[in-house]
Amino acid sequence: MKVGIVGYGNLGRGVEAAVQNAPDMELAAVFTRRDPGAVKIASDAPVVGMEALEEKAKEIDVLILCGGSATDLPEMTPKIAAMCNVVDSFDTHANIPQHLAAVDKAAKAAGTIGIISVGWDPGLFSVARLYANAALPDGDDYTFWGRGVSQGHSDAIRRIDGVLDARQYTVPVPKAVERVRAGEHPTLSTRDKHTRECFVVAEDGADKQAIEEAIVTMPNYFADYDTTVIFISQEEMEREHRGLPHGGSVLRSGMTGVDGQFNNTVEFKLDLESNPFFTGSVLTAVARAAVRMNQEGVSGGRTIFDIPPCYLSETPREELIAHML
Amino acid sequence: MKVGIVGYGNLGRGVEAAVQNAPDMELAAVFTRRDPGAVKIASDAPVVGMEALEEKAKEIDVLILCGGSATDLPEMTPKIAAMCNVVDSFDTHANIPQHLAAVDKAAKAAGTIGIISVGWDPGLFSVARLYANAALPDGDDYTFWGRGVSQGHSDAIRRIDGVLDARQYTVPVPKAVERVRAGEHPTLSTRDKHTRECFVVAEDGADKQAIEEAIVTMPNYFADYDTTVIFISQEEMEREHRGLPHGGSVLRSGMTGVDGQFNNTVEFKLDLESNPFFTGSVLTAVARAAVRMNQEGVSGGRTIFDIPPCYLSETPREELIAHML
Repeated sequence: MKVGIVGYGNLGRGVEAAVQNAPDMELAAVFTRRDPGAVKIASDAPVVGMEALEEKAKEIDVLILCGGSATDLPEMTPKIAAMCNVVDSFDTHANIPQHLAAVDKAAKAAGTIGIISVGWDPGLFSVARLYANAALPDGDDYTFWGRGVSQGHSDAIRRIDGVLDARQYTVPVPKAVERVRAGEHPTLSTRDKHTRECFVVAEDGADKQAIEEAIVTMPNYFADYDTTVIFISQEEMEREHRGLPHGGSVLRSGMTGVDGQFNNTVEFKLDLESNPFFTGSVLTAVARAAVRMNQEGVSGGRTIFDIPPCYLSETPREELIAHML
Repeated sequence: MKVGIVGYGNLGRGVEAAVQNAPDMELAAVFTRRDPGAVKIASDAPVVGMEALEEKAKEIDVLILCGGSATDLPEMTPKIAAMCNVVDSFDTHANIPQHLAAVDKAAKAAGTIGIISVGWDPGLFSVARLYANAALPDGDDYTFWGRGVSQGHSDAIRRIDGVLDARQYTVPVPKAVERVRAGEHPTLSTRDKHTRECFVVAEDGADKQAIEEAIVTMPNYFADYDTTVIFISQEEMEREHRGLPHGGSVLRSGMTGVDGQFNNTVEFKLDLESNPFFTGSVLTAVARAAVRMNQEGVSGGRTIFDIPPCYLSETPREELIAHML
């Protein structure tokens, strides 16, 4: 199948590698809003301007949209779903129903499929929650993120006066994770679940105490957490904090039997050396499912909840059943 | 939806509790090969002889088959799939393709759906392997079972001369699990992965050394493992080993990026106080999906790989998407 990538940042690079590693896929083109001549990509696929998308889309089976959730995808996904099967990683949880409705409308009219909110959260974490809830309807859900880099929180620190660079790690509180794993069904506040570690490069002569104060009191981002601020050199930042690791755990503890006789705990855990490369790999597997489902006549807006898992794998269904079931 | 249970052992009891806890389900009947008058069940559903199954099946939406994989299900599932939608927990891995083909033929001819090999392994563990393989096509799979009771191994010990009762726990080797979690991609032998703990009640005056020797050298069951045999009293057996806990982990470690730059580890872990009650709960969720898929026109033999996850939950799709994605 011929796959296109729309947008070439970290996530686009991750998708590119995953498509190249997929024996049943060919990377047809990378589309960019920038000057195509100025975009160097890792593979030898053509880099094309966005204005050529509509024309090129006719020869492409699925486009993987690697734009941002704040402003790019709400506009881009429905628009491109009117031309081609699409998959996106829209992750503004509160706006998912609205985004899905817009994609559903455009895709249904065009006879394409648009699968939204694909990645690991939303994505694999969501589907883990769903299986765990279906198996244990009477129970409690917990999600822990990290240890990993939050790009949104890192960006928020970089906007503070006197900050040259920053990297923020979200860290689950080990004691909280252990209590959930032990089946204690604890009630946990925001502060109980995660701490935040901030590595900051300050300008020469900057007021470090003012920067620290601005970070730890920042509403929504840090005020509700125990936050540690560590000032480092730009050199140390480059050396120790270049990667984008992430991960976390989805846990559900629930009761079975008569009157909740038996406790059970389900955990789905990810430990990722590179968040965008793993997310890109999940998007690529879902893109395969999109093409297969559309070939069978499915059109409209969909999510990972709607995909029979066997459509995700390059391995034929019979082989999966014989060897993986 | 009206649900029937065929066979009332530990698993049947587990299904019964799960159906009773499901607000969208009604337990229509429990079918048994024994004298229905002699079978006491936990709920007030009618207990009916197997000879009434064909007649009663007309009023039932799905039958959950709780027979054994060795002799019951290979015959029972295709036969009953010709009358009604069915779900089974067939777990003889090597014979799954053959069993699926027989169920597919019968179900297709009847316009019903037959979903086989449902539970946690095969079942949730299988689907965890599939998602992890789809996301990380380049990697290594590991499955660890336990700490939990293996009924097959317990039965094998009970057949030894001089043994009154036995309970066998399968135990993952902590060091092996840690190496996989750490992303080491180790090569592990059977002996490296699990140990076996056997609690045995011997007859008065039995030759305990001979019993121990018979256990640890038993081919297939124990010879390839480091096995510990502990003799206990019948009283201690009743007090400490009445439960049927189980669980384990499916892990996959795989590479993303160019030339395997980044390592990633996915783990799906279960910790179950009661194996049959959890398995019964999974069967019940899949029975719901069977009815829904059949209502939409799907017929034939299916597995958990074929089920869009949102069909498993009692919660409407829109609500799942709004709150769980």
